[in-house]
Amino acid sequence: MFDREFHIVTGAAGFIGSQLVDNLLSSGYRVIGIDNFVRGTRENLSSALENRQFSFIELDLTQESQANLALAGLKNKVEIIWHLAANSDIAAGNADPKIDLRDTFLTSFVIAQIAKQLNVRKLAFSSTSAIYGDLGDVELHEDIGPLFPISNYGAMKLASEACFTALAESSLDKLFVFRFPNVVGGRATHGVIFDFLNKLEESPDILHVLGDGTQCKPYLEVTDLISAMRMIVSQSRRKINCFNIGPEDSGLSVKSIAEAVVGVASPSAQIFYGAEARGWVGDVPRFRYSISRLKSLGWKPRFKSSEEAVAHAIVLQFKERRSRSPH
Amino acid sequence: MFDREFHIVTGAAGFIGSQLVDNLLSSGYRVIGIDNFVRGTRENLSSALENRQFSFIELDLTQESQANLALAGLKNKVEIIWHLAANSDIAAGNADPKIDLRDTFLTSFVIAQIAKQLNVRKLAFSSTSAIYGDLGDVELHEDIGPLFPISNYGAMKLASEACFTALAESSLDKLFVFRFPNVVGGRATHGVIFDFLNKLEESPDILHVLGDGTQCKPYLEVTDLISAMRMIVSQSRRKINCFNIGPEDSGLSVKSIAEAVVGVASPSAQIFYGAEARGWVGDVPRFRYSISRLKSLGWKPRFKSSEEAVAHAIVLQFKERRSRSPH
Repeated sequence: MFDREFHIVTGAAGFIGSQLVDNLLSSGYRVIGIDNFVRGTRENLSSALENRQFSFIELDLTQESQANLALAGLKNKVEIIWHLAANSDIAAGNADPKIDLRDTFLTSFVIAQIAKQLNVRKLAFSSTSAIYGDLGDVELHEDIGPLFPISNYGAMKLASEACFTALAESSLDKLFVFRFPNVVGGRATHGVIFDFLNKLEESPDILHVLGDGTQCKPYLEVTDLISAMRMIVSQSRRKINCFNIGPEDSGLSVKSIAEAVVGVASPSAQIFYGAEARGWVGDVPRFRYSISRLKSLGWKPRFKSSEEAVAHAIVLQFKERRSRSPH
Repeated sequence: MFDREFHIVTGAAGFIGSQLVDNLLSSGYRVIGIDNFVRGTRENLSSALENRQFSFIELDLTQESQANLALAGLKNKVEIIWHLAANSDIAAGNADPKIDLRDTFLTSFVIAQIAKQLNVRKLAFSSTSAIYGDLGDVELHEDIGPLFPISNYGAMKLASEACFTALAESSLDKLFVFRFPNVVGGRATHGVIFDFLNKLEESPDILHVLGDGTQCKPYLEVTDLISAMRMIVSQSRRKINCFNIGPEDSGLSVKSIAEAVVGVASPSAQIFYGAEARGWVGDVPRFRYSISRLKSLGWKPRFKSSEEAVAHAIVLQFKERRSRSPH
């Protein structure tokens, strides 16, 4: 028996969390998943729940005393916490900043306290490209400044990063900060493909796109994301290891995604665009994302471009929907 | 009568807040001070409270519904919010991160919501050099990265900045972010001089210094700080105006301060130093602080150096103590 045998994954029932759980289990790790099922689903964990190496705790991490109680037995037994729990619905967070406060920031704050109490030495955190705000055409590398996020989502992720860097100073051996781009793939609970499929399900003849469709962003397939996260954790040796993760290309336009989704889900639908370059308040319409630090580790994604990743994800998500509610 | 005639100052009864209140009143503004008297004192507001242009609201800003109620009548009537309320006791915040969470971050989060509700168009925020973490010998200019604060104090200030930049995107005309260095002067409720005077009051023969005394940091006198804040608000024209504020020199060692305090307060005391270069977890032992952006506005401090500012503050604080408790 190992001393520190457990991997904790928060947000375990979510889109990325559940894929990470499956991946860690396939490597033979013992995994403890935590989720409150606000956005995540039991269905996402269906294969994990059959694995004897997996335990699940239904828990709202913002309830610190409950969380302490549930996890108290794990002191000195946790190899790493993968903190993925967060509000993933950016528009909802802009409409009500308390959602990002609670689900993104306060979960991070509580996890930092728990990590200290359980004497966890490694923590991996899913941050976001949104912490960079809108720096225009500058290539966004990990050491750039200033950091003026323009959405509450980005703000509460930057706030969480800060929480963890302070924790690293006092009580971690290693902190891993992953700055995610847009992530696509199976089990998605949010995102542009998810939204478009939703809209077409409601009205199959019309697709209204937020913004003028020229927004152009990098999209990464979720299994490529997870391979990057795993590689960073196994290979990085600094105290604070902060990495942009993204595809190798510079991105795909929202117009291209809309057309591809319509092509798969509802070929006769007409697409209508808004007038604004930004899809919503806090939307960063385009950014150039440096992944040279990640590539220096030797990482190669399975999907060659944002376009390939998106095309794959559209088909997968479309099939998932049909298998859930055949009509 | 002006449309937007009120300046709101949070943390109004504190060290810097009360000096800012006096300064704004002396310029003829109508000022509303808010404080919860956790660290601030009524004494600091004694002259302001005699001024008919000043109103005071005793309020814990983390109680959002109470704050909303108390301030609801000010919609469209506030020219600017100066948000200075925060935990100023860095060591206390490291011992219990909830103090910084509540008093530094959550007050900022609530003020952001209030600013939106009252349709306030300008907000000025007292941030800190601690948001830069420990970047070693690099000169800290406002656009530098990465931002990995090493104290909870710095983390919750960076978290607050992020909150306000997201607010700026959705509902401010102008945001002013002041990154304070160590500030010294009359009415101080914390800081190295305050601590040393406290210790010598308790045991006049011995002064124990946290750290080996080689820590070397810039110190700014509080009236110089306020002249910089006022100048930035009146002259800066960008949407987000972020400024380091500091003295013109590179700093003063803790050893020099210890010797100067002993010289004034208890000349026969012996000084003992610790072994560590850092005074406490999260202490940044030395940093080079760029104030070229501030100087480009034409700002000149009254005190020529950290040493002059500190010498002035020691005498002032020593006198304040004697006038409060003569013995």
